[in-house]
Amino acid sequence: MAVEEEQPEKGFVKEIRKQSQDFPGWYNDVVRKAELADYSAVRGCMVIRPYGFALWENIRNALDALIKKTGHENWYFPMLIPLSFLQKEAEHVEGFAPEFALVTRGGGKELEEPLVLRPTSETLLATTLRDYVQSYRDLPVLTNQWNNVFRWELRTRLFLRTMEFLWQEGHTFHETSEEAEKEVYTMLECYRQIAEEWCAIPVIPGRKSEIEKFAGAQYSTAIEALMKDGKALQAATSHYFGENFTRAYDLTFTGRNNEKQYPHSTSWGMSTRIVGALIMVHGDESGIQMPPMVAPIQVVIVPIFRSEAERSQIAAALAPVLEDLSEIRLKQDWRDQRPGFKFSEWELKGVPVRIEVGPRDLARNEVTVVRRYDRAKEAIGLRDLGVRIPAMLKQIQDAMFARAMEFRTTNTVRLDSLPAMVEHFQRGSGFVLTPWCGSAEDELKVKELTGATTRVIPTGSVAPAAACAVCGKPAATEVIWAKAY
Amino acid sequence: MAVEEEQPEKGFVKEIRKQSQDFPGWYNDVVRKAELADYSAVRGCMVIRPYGFALWENIRNALDALIKKTGHENWYFPMLIPLSFLQKEAEHVEGFAPEFALVTRGGGKELEEPLVLRPTSETLLATTLRDYVQSYRDLPVLTNQWNNVFRWELRTRLFLRTMEFLWQEGHTFHETSEEAEKEVYTMLECYRQIAEEWCAIPVIPGRKSEIEKFAGAQYSTAIEALMKDGKALQAATSHYFGENFTRAYDLTFTGRNNEKQYPHSTSWGMSTRIVGALIMVHGDESGIQMPPMVAPIQVVIVPIFRSEAERSQIAAALAPVLEDLSEIRLKQDWRDQRPGFKFSEWELKGVPVRIEVGPRDLARNEVTVVRRYDRAKEAIGLRDLGVRIPAMLKQIQDAMFARAMEFRTTNTVRLDSLPAMVEHFQRGSGFVLTPWCGSAEDELKVKELTGATTRVIPTGSVAPAAACAVCGKPAATEVIWAKAY
Repeated sequence: MAVEEEQPEKGFVKEIRKQSQDFPGWYNDVVRKAELADYSAVRGCMVIRPYGFALWENIRNALDALIKKTGHENWYFPMLIPLSFLQKEAEHVEGFAPEFALVTRGGGKELEEPLVLRPTSETLLATTLRDYVQSYRDLPVLTNQWNNVFRWELRTRLFLRTMEFLWQEGHTFHETSEEAEKEVYTMLECYRQIAEEWCAIPVIPGRKSEIEKFAGAQYSTAIEALMKDGKALQAATSHYFGENFTRAYDLTFTGRNNEKQYPHSTSWGMSTRIVGALIMVHGDESGIQMPPMVAPIQVVIVPIFRSEAERSQIAAALAPVLEDLSEIRLKQDWRDQRPGFKFSEWELKGVPVRIEVGPRDLARNEVTVVRRYDRAKEAIGLRDLGVRIPAMLKQIQDAMFARAMEFRTTNTVRLDSLPAMVEHFQRGSGFVLTPWCGSAEDELKVKELTGATTRVIPTGSVAPAAACAVCGKPAATEVIWAKAY
Repeated sequence: MAVEEEQPEKGFVKEIRKQSQDFPGWYNDVVRKAELADYSAVRGCMVIRPYGFALWENIRNALDALIKKTGHENWYFPMLIPLSFLQKEAEHVEGFAPEFALVTRGGGKELEEPLVLRPTSETLLATTLRDYVQSYRDLPVLTNQWNNVFRWELRTRLFLRTMEFLWQEGHTFHETSEEAEKEVYTMLECYRQIAEEWCAIPVIPGRKSEIEKFAGAQYSTAIEALMKDGKALQAATSHYFGENFTRAYDLTFTGRNNEKQYPHSTSWGMSTRIVGALIMVHGDESGIQMPPMVAPIQVVIVPIFRSEAERSQIAAALAPVLEDLSEIRLKQDWRDQRPGFKFSEWELKGVPVRIEVGPRDLARNEVTVVRRYDRAKEAIGLRDLGVRIPAMLKQIQDAMFARAMEFRTTNTVRLDSLPAMVEHFQRGSGFVLTPWCGSAEDELKVKELTGATTRVIPTGSVAPAAACAVCGKPAATEVIWAKAY
């Protein structure tokens, strides 16, 4: 947990704090002023406003399509889980119990057994599927669900950590460990695609250490992204449970050998947290920057007019353009406000492309097109917009990813000793790559001295022929260290 | 509440009870055996299985598009509502309090104030929007959200009444009552479209009586459908609150006259209950019948083969057909099971069109096509499927609606006296249309004598020049009576 976390602030945001001076303050201000989300009257819970929800819907729809394409089906499981269910897997309950929210009264009566608002649904899935799984022919069961989950958090931050959040949780059950482990990485790859190809967020997929793994998992994997303040954010996770949950919940099947066996299970999730990552990777002093692929509004048209006659002239000239751009998520801003006010607002909200059109532009059959990501301005002929705008959106998407990747590259260093790590994290942050023996003691020592933790052992990285940067024993892997959200 | 309601039954459904003999038993069996939903290990809560959830997704996506087209935006509001919020509107809290589920512990501590799992979000919306609404320029606010809600129910039935259910709830806030009342009927019309045009369920839109209205509303409207057992089901509701909630929650705006005013608000919702309605309107002794527009699977292909050679031959012949039908939600059933077993299963699941294809069909370059709704069989040339199947699905959709409409017409009678009503409801059910003076006493009397309640005063019905069927006073309206879910 980071120290500079803030308590909810309410009221009107007048000015956005400087990203360069107060990153958490800047984050809080842009999220609220760009009308993505806000604190609510309910402690620890946020209201997701339409502009933020539309962004989440775009990410969700892309991920839902990938989840279905990879053979999973959406279910809906109950939100209330009897406390006793959660208590059967020891590591799991230990991990989550401090964050339980409990329903103890219903219909005017005290309940015999408290019900927990689901923090995650492994326990309920393993219990429920006992009714549906008998033989190896019933496997695999590949489930997903989109829902709300609850973790009692004392310090909250919009999108990054709230008591209630939205996510999808996938749970799958397989005949063999090979199949289950393959599933873990199939879903990690889906998350990589959503992060990189849709949200333009470069991520490092890899395996978590024993300390950082999910409570109850045999191992966890994740995709890790680097925020503009140099801190890491885990953007999604995918876990391998082996038989841990199926044994604890007595979910069995009759195998090909006619003997009782336990399915091998996985779970994986991506939450509204990805919205926070997107803001902290792409935002700048002027506000948010939306990657075109997921932007709620891809293009905003700001007409500039002084009279009703000019207004009509612009509207008439735009009519065929709107038809040419019918596939684009486009907004026209005809509000009775100064153009400068509108420009700032759409910059704050991070709309990738702004089209300014006034009488002088029309006299030349042109409009002025401004790209949010580099503020480049150019005049484009009215008839060319249908071709040029989609190409420009694609180009912006790629450029945003490239810029974020460059930032990450610049902010990743290889180090080979503990003193170097301590020195590094004293003056800065970012990703630090070191050889590592794999011991938990090393992790605890580094955390104590620097505040950094292991993020992932990158997928595909090979054991370096070097000494562990922390303790000097032979390295077993490479690992990424960072201060993290 | 109906008397024949059932307590959850678990375990494997062997045989489906007869619709004609035990309608509730039949309903329960088809829902479970067709794998739409099931009781869960959590009392009162259901698991929606993939086939049921896909149906709900299709309905939801159609409704979501209509909600957006009519100018509403999706938000997400917290699920936990402080108890004190709910207590500010007297009628509302009285209506919902007996069904509250309360969180009293969180993070290992007793809470100072219990949190209610939202039964509906009027109170939270009115509170939250105080931060966003200052002037008439900020109105209207047109919100929608898709979420889960909770009502502590003692007797549950899958989809129809469960402790947790999924729905959308829209909440809107307007400058004038005219605008708000128009909104109420705009949304009722959206619901009518979803019910009639997508789910093939004929509905009667209209206004609820004072007794039947929503707790806290000035008036409620609803669409009412008639189930095959002659009972009515309210398929969606749309409410006008006037200033009730905005006054109670002190949500104000500065009007055009520069004075403080209260917005006029509405709310409207459709839930997973519509799935129950669809089953009870279209199902028969063989199982469910899915209207093609919302069917998770529109066409199932059952290949009939005895050898690997025949199997390959069929697969090859089908390849171009699958391309022709790429816009159709289609499933191929290559499982190693007898064709008869597969036919029954797809009939149970209500897939609108089944294509049987074996070597004999292929010898004639044909397939056998069977319509679920009337079991009509016909041979269709392989090359014609791309044109014939979409047309057939459209025809089935229309025919299902027409059949349901005919059922409703046959089961609607006009009566003009209380004895006639009593006699009618002794032997039967269905919709009874009568002149009515509008008094609540009449409603209570009829309910006591017959079990029937007023469903709606149909939109557009005119006051008949007749005496109230119940008390003989001059009639103010026509009204529909029925026993109801």
